[in-house]
Amino acid sequence: MSQTKDTVVLAYSGGLDTSCILLWLKEKGYDIIAYLANIGQNEDFEEARKKAIKLGAKKVFIEDVRKEFVEEFIWPAVQANAIYEDRYLLGTSLARPCIAKKQVEIAKREGAKYVSHGATGKGNDQIRFELTCYSLYPEVKIIAPWRMPEFYNRFRGRTDLMDYAKKHGIPIPVTPKSPWSMDENIMHISITSHVISPQNHAPDELFVKTKDPRTSPSTPDILEIEFKKGESVAGEICKVRWVKCAPFFSLRRGKHGVGRIDIVENRYIGMKSRGIYETPAGTILHHAHLDIETFTMDREVRRIKQELSLRFSEQVYNGYWYSPECDFVRSCISKSQELVEGKVQVSVLKGQVYMLGRESPQSLYNEELVSMDKQGDYEPCDASGFIRINAVRLKEYHRLGKKVTAK
Amino acid sequence: MSQTKDTVVLAYSGGLDTSCILLWLKEKGYDIIAYLANIGQNEDFEEARKKAIKLGAKKVFIEDVRKEFVEEFIWPAVQANAIYEDRYLLGTSLARPCIAKKQVEIAKREGAKYVSHGATGKGNDQIRFELTCYSLYPEVKIIAPWRMPEFYNRFRGRTDLMDYAKKHGIPIPVTPKSPWSMDENIMHISITSHVISPQNHAPDELFVKTKDPRTSPSTPDILEIEFKKGESVAGEICKVRWVKCAPFFSLRRGKHGVGRIDIVENRYIGMKSRGIYETPAGTILHHAHLDIETFTMDREVRRIKQELSLRFSEQVYNGYWYSPECDFVRSCISKSQELVEGKVQVSVLKGQVYMLGRESPQSLYNEELVSMDKQGDYEPCDASGFIRINAVRLKEYHRLGKKVTAK
Amino acid sequence: MSQTKDTVVLAYSGGLDTSCILLWLKEKGYDIIAYLANIGQNEDFEEARKKAIKLGAKKVFIEDVRKEFVEEFIWPAVQANAIYEDRYLLGTSLARPCIAKKQVEIAKREGAKYVSHGATGKGNDQIRFELTCYSLYPEVKIIAPWRMPEFYNRFRGRTDLMDYAKKHGIPIPVTPKSPWSMDENIMHISITSHVISPQNHAPDELFVKTKDPRTSPSTPDILEIEFKKGESVAGEICKVRWVKCAPFFSLRRGKHGVGRIDIVENRYIGMKSRGIYETPAGTILHHAHLDIETFTMDREVRRIKQELSLRFSEQVYNGYWYSPECDFVRSCISKSQELVEGKVQVSVLKGQVYMLGRESPQSLYNEELVSMDKQGDYEPCDASGFIRINAVRLKEYHRLGKKVTAK
Amino acid sequence: MSQTKDTVVLAYSGGLDTSCILLWLKEKGYDIIAYLANIGQNEDFEEARKKAIKLGAKKVFIEDVRKEFVEEFIWPAVQANAIYEDRYLLGTSLARPCIAKKQVEIAKREGAKYVSHGATGKGNDQIRFELTCYSLYPEVKIIAPWRMPEFYNRFRGRTDLMDYAKKHGIPIPVTPKSPWSMDENIMHISITSHVISPQNHAPDELFVKTKDPRTSPSTPDILEIEFKKGESVAGEICKVRWVKCAPFFSLRRGKHGVGRIDIVENRYIGMKSRGIYETPAGTILHHAHLDIETFTMDREVRRIKQELSLRFSEQVYNGYWYSPECDFVRSCISKSQELVEGKVQVSVLKGQVYMLGRESPQSLYNEELVSMDKQGDYEPCDASGFIRINAVRLKEYHRLGKKVTAK
Repeated sequence: MSQTKDTVVLAYSGGLDTSCILLWLKEKGYDIIAYLANIGQNEDFEEARKKAIKLGAKKVFIEDVRKEFVEEFIWPAVQANAIYEDRYLLGTSLARPCIAKKQVEIAKREGAKYVSHGATGKGNDQIRFELTCYSLYPEVKIIAPWRMPEFYNRFRGRTDLMDYAKKHGIPIPVTPKSPWSMDENIMHISITSHVISPQNHAPDELFVKTKDPRTSPSTPDILEIEFKKGESVAGEICKVRWVKCAPFFSLRRGKHGVGRIDIVENRYIGMKSRGIYETPAGTILHHAHLDIETFTMDREVRRIKQELSLRFSEQVYNGYWYSPECDFVRSCISKSQELVEGKVQVSVLKGQVYMLGRESPQSLYNEELVSMDKQGDYEPCDASGFIRINAVRLKEYHRLGKKVTAK
Repeated sequence: MSQTKDTVVLAYSGGLDTSCILLWLKEKGYDIIAYLANIGQNEDFEEARKKAIKLGAKKVFIEDVRKEFVEEFIWPAVQANAIYEDRYLLGTSLARPCIAKKQVEIAKREGAKYVSHGATGKGNDQIRFELTCYSLYPEVKIIAPWRMPEFYNRFRGRTDLMDYAKKHGIPIPVTPKSPWSMDENIMHISITSHVISPQNHAPDELFVKTKDPRTSPSTPDILEIEFKKGESVAGEICKVRWVKCAPFFSLRRGKHGVGRIDIVENRYIGMKSRGIYETPAGTILHHAHLDIETFTMDREVRRIKQELSLRFSEQVYNGYWYSPECDFVRSCISKSQELVEGKVQVSVLKGQVYMLGRESPQSLYNEELVSMDKQGDYEPCDASGFIRINAVRLKEYHRLGKKVTAK
Repeated sequence: MSQTKDTVVLAYSGGLDTSCILLWLKEKGYDIIAYLANIGQNEDFEEARKKAIKLGAKKVFIEDVRKEFVEEFIWPAVQANAIYEDRYLLGTSLARPCIAKKQVEIAKREGAKYVSHGATGKGNDQIRFELTCYSLYPEVKIIAPWRMPEFYNRFRGRTDLMDYAKKHGIPIPVTPKSPWSMDENIMHISITSHVISPQNHAPDELFVKTKDPRTSPSTPDILEIEFKKGESVAGEICKVRWVKCAPFFSLRRGKHGVGRIDIVENRYIGMKSRGIYETPAGTILHHAHLDIETFTMDREVRRIKQELSLRFSEQVYNGYWYSPECDFVRSCISKSQELVEGKVQVSVLKGQVYMLGRESPQSLYNEELVSMDKQGDYEPCDASGFIRINAVRLKEYHRLGKKVTAK
Repeated sequence: MSQTKDTVVLAYSGGLDTSCILLWLKEKGYDIIAYLANIGQNEDFEEARKKAIKLGAKKVFIEDVRKEFVEEFIWPAVQANAIYEDRYLLGTSLARPCIAKKQVEIAKREGAKYVSHGATGKGNDQIRFELTCYSLYPEVKIIAPWRMPEFYNRFRGRTDLMDYAKKHGIPIPVTPKSPWSMDENIMHISITSHVISPQNHAPDELFVKTKDPRTSPSTPDILEIEFKKGESVAGEICKVRWVKCAPFFSLRRGKHGVGRIDIVENRYIGMKSRGIYETPAGTILHHAHLDIETFTMDREVRRIKQELSLRFSEQVYNGYWYSPECDFVRSCISKSQELVEGKVQVSVLKGQVYMLGRESPQSLYNEELVSMDKQGDYEPCDASGFIRINAVRLKEYHRLGKKVTAK
């Protein structure tokens, strides 16, 4: 409509939704740059490129962000032992800022004032995408069709989208759409169900990235994972290096059924949702890092770092990767990792990860000190004083007739 | 020596160490009351009784504390999702105050001014025992032989103890002592190694309470665990009732190899030690409770409760069950559990616990609200405002030229 | 214009803004119930009533919420030592849920589906009002004119409001409006400046509730404040009773210039604003409670409670008084206060509050124990063991060649 | 006794106690190095040197640690807003590791295996001294006479010490010893009373470092304090430079009666004690730093940093300055200060510190954004979405019939 068209960078997936959005944005008069990140998902990228062009995208950028994702997002999360609500390893949450950061880079480079995405209006991903965009490109304008009555009142369901696609010659999938909403990357896949209730059991065929532990190999794989202070100046510490990392991620994935969880979680938006996740390599790394960290890190540093990790996990889940607070916490956690190095031996079998052993030049474990047979630099009777002094407070409390026991 | 002998209540296990301690205390002129708690360990209690009497104990008390242990110690820990350093479910830590509390009761009832135990001078258990004693019986005097030079310089190893035993007619074990120090109760067994280094793998035969997942059944057991606000006045909330609980604990134990961990942990005393633990039923309950709790508890309450649980876990590990702070935290956690009720379906297989589904009359999950197809009481465009307001701070930060990204 | 008019309960202050809003709502076809809370502000309530009726309010409710405000809002905050960002005693934040709660009660009782207020679109108060309304009356519809383009584009400044008022015969203030936005209640007054920048000093005449310390009396007042477990079943603990409280609040206010602060604070909405507050009695109570609490509360309970108080303060500031998490935290804090009782002597002079002494039947202070001259139930050499055991960890850290000092 | 005498470095103050200890150690056969730190206390150092030599010290070291104390200990505490139990600015706690560090340096340099001090067996200082020593010199042996029965049973009170002094020609103070135990340094003075009970009011003559606010000047001093990122590579940030700092500390001290507190605090050793402290300059800096920090620091960073500061304060109070955890926390806090810079105007009068204004090139305050009259980059109706999304959770909670209000 306008003479000089405004340009939108659309996060394009190749699927029905973003194809329709692409077309709809064009209809609205925008120039479209389609952007598709290769973050390790199972996808025919060339097919997607062709489709985007066919639909009228002025440009298409397919960006391989896998290395960046592993090095700049997954590793800090492993170092943090990041886990949301005690169970979720944040596979999707970590991918979003990585994808959106590149989208913003393209928008800036191409002079686009708008970005758009196909995330729904009830989820976390819209927040993760947009907070990243606003943080890195404060002037940006965001078009989120699924939050615009003009769009969602027109496309009230899959049938409306299919009709629109057919009308505009968008190739539509022949198979009926799965009732699951999936999101995959090199680290994990999330399967969010909008169909089955929390009490219904997930069907076996739902899982994509992990073998069913009932049928997975009966012989464990023994892995050795090495954590080391990185050589690079930028401070990547405590990581399997990329060269080791790549095959690790690609080969081990899911063979032993490790990393399946089925949870109800609390979205940032204030509602509970059910999620099923598969995070094979991430789960193994999580356990291995926990182990080497406790082996090499001072107890009290660990305690403080654990609280910072809780904060970090919430920040990441809620979409605040690019925020002053997450920046601050990441730098604190990174500091805590300086001496976290060593090797962990792990047995992987039937969905389970067992620690077998660990060794480190930085270990704070002192065999002589802890030995029951040797005294080491330790005076047993000191413990009497230690206990009695710690009891001073307890004895006072009791003496004054206060009830120590919960009633 | 003295005419009116002082009386000691000795926590007696029937083993070589406490048998020698019993004798040694008698030699020192004390009257001995042997006390043995039945907390669910595998033990011939009558045999132990006879042995204690033979060794010269004036009285022997064998107390069944299993019900108390489950109801007053394990359940609060399950409610708290208590876990030390991200991995240890605190099976031994929880048992100590339960055992020591009864020991103090006996000492007070029998007019004994002394209590004694066979815990070593480098471990956590001495602290857990003694803080309980000092807290509940401030005037008590504690005899901890393994911290007394007079004792540990005389008995420098197993051979010295054996010789002493032989000399005094203490029946000595014919088999060589296992190189493992074990502590068992209804919830778990701990196997602390003072022999193998953290890098050495635990031998298969070490495990006692759980089947090897490689040879455990290939067919999962499907359990349904119900959490409910308890009827009892004392306020035990969110618990499988005792009637259901007993068989659960006794039958399910370890069949599927659930609950093995191998860790290096930080003792309160300031050293790191390696521990191997088996907690079959406790592990299943931990996962089930986590699930039902997240399903029924408000997000922000959960967050605060999670921090309280961290504190609780440290208090329990360090021996502060009977302390004003643990009393306070337990009462807060108990308050948080009032609405935690419902049923969780769990699949147990090959060392792993999978959540299958959950239902609750108190669920905060709202199917219509979270649905992608229905709008529910939710206006998608509200999310735009939500995101933009949350971005105000981020945009300001960026605008002032600050570096948002970690470098 | 609809036949059966919808009813709005408007939080009415009698000022220019809400008078115009009242009229504007009528113009829009609503029936108006004007509601004015007496929360201790300096106001001619009868004048306001007449004005509201004159403007066309169908009903006017003037509610005295002072007792409720003191008992149900101020006291829990005193118990919590609630303070936002280390300085602000939350005087306005506490008043909002109290006012809005009554507004909701009226709306429900009168069958009104709408509530309205005159708070701006950039402040905290809109959030505090509305979260209370949504929480207590989820179906309510809220009209916030200052966030509606239709309203704020029409009334772009004070002049527009004045013109509108004049046109509709609203009595308008003859004096030019103060450049300060004030909010007063029994506890405090807030003076938010939208005129002067953070670097400009507040003029002397700005302060309303406190004497200038330069001219306040040179002789201190010595107060004795008693904290006691309340008699009421509902659990109001640690409070000066209402009978004592009323004169305290009314008489002491500001005579000695206590309670002035000038800060830049972080709004929930993500921006920083400058605020000047006067909280005379609240400041004295804050210091007195801190004192008696530390005197009677166990150290570790205090530590945990302090963290809960941080959470509580943020919840209150952000408007979450009526939320599951604030409910939870309040109940925890209330539990912590059970033994907080005693008398504190305080000297108040020239803006400062000095503690002079304190006494309590629940004191954990033990004169003999702490005495340098008497030993009490304390063995000095126990401290050697205490220190050495606490040093085990530090020595290990150092020995392994790690750098203990920050560099 | 021994041919080659063992050497002790004794922290010597020149007073009766450490003079007797010096002599007693000599009597025990040690070679004595007397060490006296000049940390800003009011003391005749040359007189003390002569006395030590007269008593038989082999060497005397009087070390000026004032610059180090200010730069390496006070500033990190100011940056942290360090405060123990909400009131104590840690003046003594900060001095101890500074003094002990130098003592250890001397011991190492002089080849002394022993260090000794005159701190009592019930206080915090013994812990602060000794943890520093063990951390920096793990092999060191510590002689703490006041914890040795051999010493404290011989010297049961001041009279015994006086007799001993007289017998050995130690010059004894003619005036009766003050009933107060004082500890002074450049930052503060602590006056610990072992005589008066917590309910007794401190006499006027007790205060040393601050004027009585009743008689202090009636005209305020207006100070401007500048915080700036330090030039040094080591990362000392946000500090008044030493050149500005020295006169500030020396001149302003106490003229306006700022910084008096009278508290009951919780010692690490588990007992409560009453302390009276004067911290004039430190109190002003505390308020000024709080102000500039909130002005320049992101809200969420501040929140996390505030929790770290709580930890830091406890670490410092308990004597863990030289520990891995304090090292870690200091480095996190230091990171948080990078953008904390600007000028604060402060009025100091009659014991009170008022903030007048502040300015900074790094301010996150945005006048246009926060203005009620200008819209800035802000859409008021976004706040509606923000509030409604935040209410989703609250409405759900209420809808399910749960009780939102505390009962």
